Amino acid sequence: MKEVLIDKLLADPFAKYLGIQVKKVEEGKAIVSVLVKEDFLNFHGAANGGLIFSLVDVAFAIASNSYGQTAVGVNVNINYMKAGIPGDILTTTAEEVSKNHKLGFYRMLVHNQIGDLIATADGMVYRKKEMFV
Amino acid sequence: MKEVLIDKLLADPFAKYLGIQVKKVEEGKAIVSVLVKEDFLNFHGAANGGLIFSLVDVAFAIASNSYGQTAVGVNVNINYMKAGIPGDILTTTAEEVSKNHKLGFYRMLVHNQIGDLIATADGMVYRKKEMFV
Amino acid sequence: MKEVLIDKLLADPFAKYLGIQVKKVEEGKAIVSVLVKEDFLNFHGAANGGLIFSLVDVAFAIASNSYGQTAVGVNVNINYMKAGIPGDILTTTAEEVSKNHKLGFYRMLVHNQIGDLIATADGMVYRKKEMFV
Amino acid sequence: MKEVLIDKLLADPFAKYLGIQVKKVEEGKAIVSVLVKEDFLNFHGAANGGLIFSLVDVAFAIASNSYGQTAVGVNVNINYMKAGIPGDILTTTAEEVSKNHKLGFYRMLVHNQIGDLIATADGMVYRKKEMFV
Repeated sequence: MKEVLIDKLLADPFAKYLGIQVKKVEEGKAIVSVLVKEDFLNFHGAANGGLIFSLVDVAFAIASNSYGQTAVGVNVNINYMKAGIPGDILTTTAEEVSKNHKLGFYRMLVHNQIGDLIATADGMVYRKKEMFV
Repeated sequence: MKEVLIDKLLADPFAKYLGIQVKKVEEGKAIVSVLVKEDFLNFHGAANGGLIFSLVDVAFAIASNSYGQTAVGVNVNINYMKAGIPGDILTTTAEEVSKNHKLGFYRMLVHNQIGDLIATADGMVYRKKEMFV
Repeated sequence: MKEVLIDKLLADPFAKYLGIQVKKVEEGKAIVSVLVKEDFLNFHGAANGGLIFSLVDVAFAIASNSYGQTAVGVNVNINYMKAGIPGDILTTTAEEVSKNHKLGFYRMLVHNQIGDLIATADGMVYRKKEMFV
Repeated sequence: MKEVLIDKLLADPFAKYLGIQVKKVEEGKAIVSVLVKEDFLNFHGAANGGLIFSLVDVAFAIASNSYGQTAVGVNVNINYMKAGIPGDILTTTAEEVSKNHKLGFYRMLVHNQIGDLIATADGMVYRKKEMFV
């Protein structure tokens, strides 16, 4: 992958705002992680569903845009298995399941620092004709 | 609804962190909104999918916990129809579709300030026996 | 709508195989129903999830193809609220939520003959350039 | 697994009606297949989405009920990658992703006879207290 492309994929303002760290970027694949801070909880005291989804979405966006062709998320389905708690480090892996010229499908898994499965998600992108890099 | 319950529903750290404002809370229903700031964009310059989902999730959590009985999100499916842009004010309405003693189903719609449909989502909760208020 | 288009939409072999009846066809909308026969049950004795989904899918396919432009289902998410039982007549309404030149989004609701909500579903299609009629 | 349990899992009327064959049953796992007959097509001439979903649902039901504890499907999300055509033999594998005392999560993959990925699906069940065998 070209450096200019990787730089672009890493320049996500919302990911930075949440302190999401990108651990790995490959064609069709990404690994990202985040620390569950007090600011990221819900009113029950667990990691907010929006935080977990945001982590998933960052991995999904990087993996699906990793060819330099603009990919826009159109559907994501997420299942929550286990709560995240303050201090957890949550890691998401996104992997390409399938793609054709117009659509791409990705599978995301979220684990905590001791390997518990926190959530699973499936995402679909619409692939535009344009290259953004 | 009791004031202590409403206070609890409004005390969501992640919602506050994102500047999400709660406009309406009723049994089985909630309306919330957020301003799309520069910090909330993705690397294509549009509102991050995680931001839109987080807005949806806040409305979903309030609506599903509005009876004082602990409801935990287990599945959410989101479809993105139109991009949000910096300066947009996005509003989500969550409404109860159905519930029984164990599960509850909610429908969320996201619109921008001129009434364009930005996203739709369906969410399911598992309803625990305990009352949190 | 042209008669040749309606004839095409009604000529669905699997819908016929299941005895699914089309009650209404309009642009972006369809209503279909089916009788829950003994052959359509699961091993718990309730209406099979596949039967309910098939009913949903027939309504979805008609509504999304009702412009004569080829629409191909790419994602469907279904939530089951209540079991169907032998002898039930299940009816599904599909309505267009949104569409652009490439994607279309539809919402389906399934009720039984006494108005109980049995299931809800969201479906997305990819819209090809070709017209099939 | 006890024979009486396996017999029960194989006695699905709708699966029989569609000619679905069960290839493998284990705790938390199932493999099933079906021949795409002319009766199973949609009005575009491809395998009906309802047929593919029904295959997925049979595998999901067997895998999630394989402990003898009654499991009821509450949510399924399906992504269609490639069309099935008349004469295809479609095979679905269902595998358990996670379960706790109340909920179970399953992942289904559908392939044709030459190994093309036709569809992926995620399913969630609610696990009742009762044992059906």
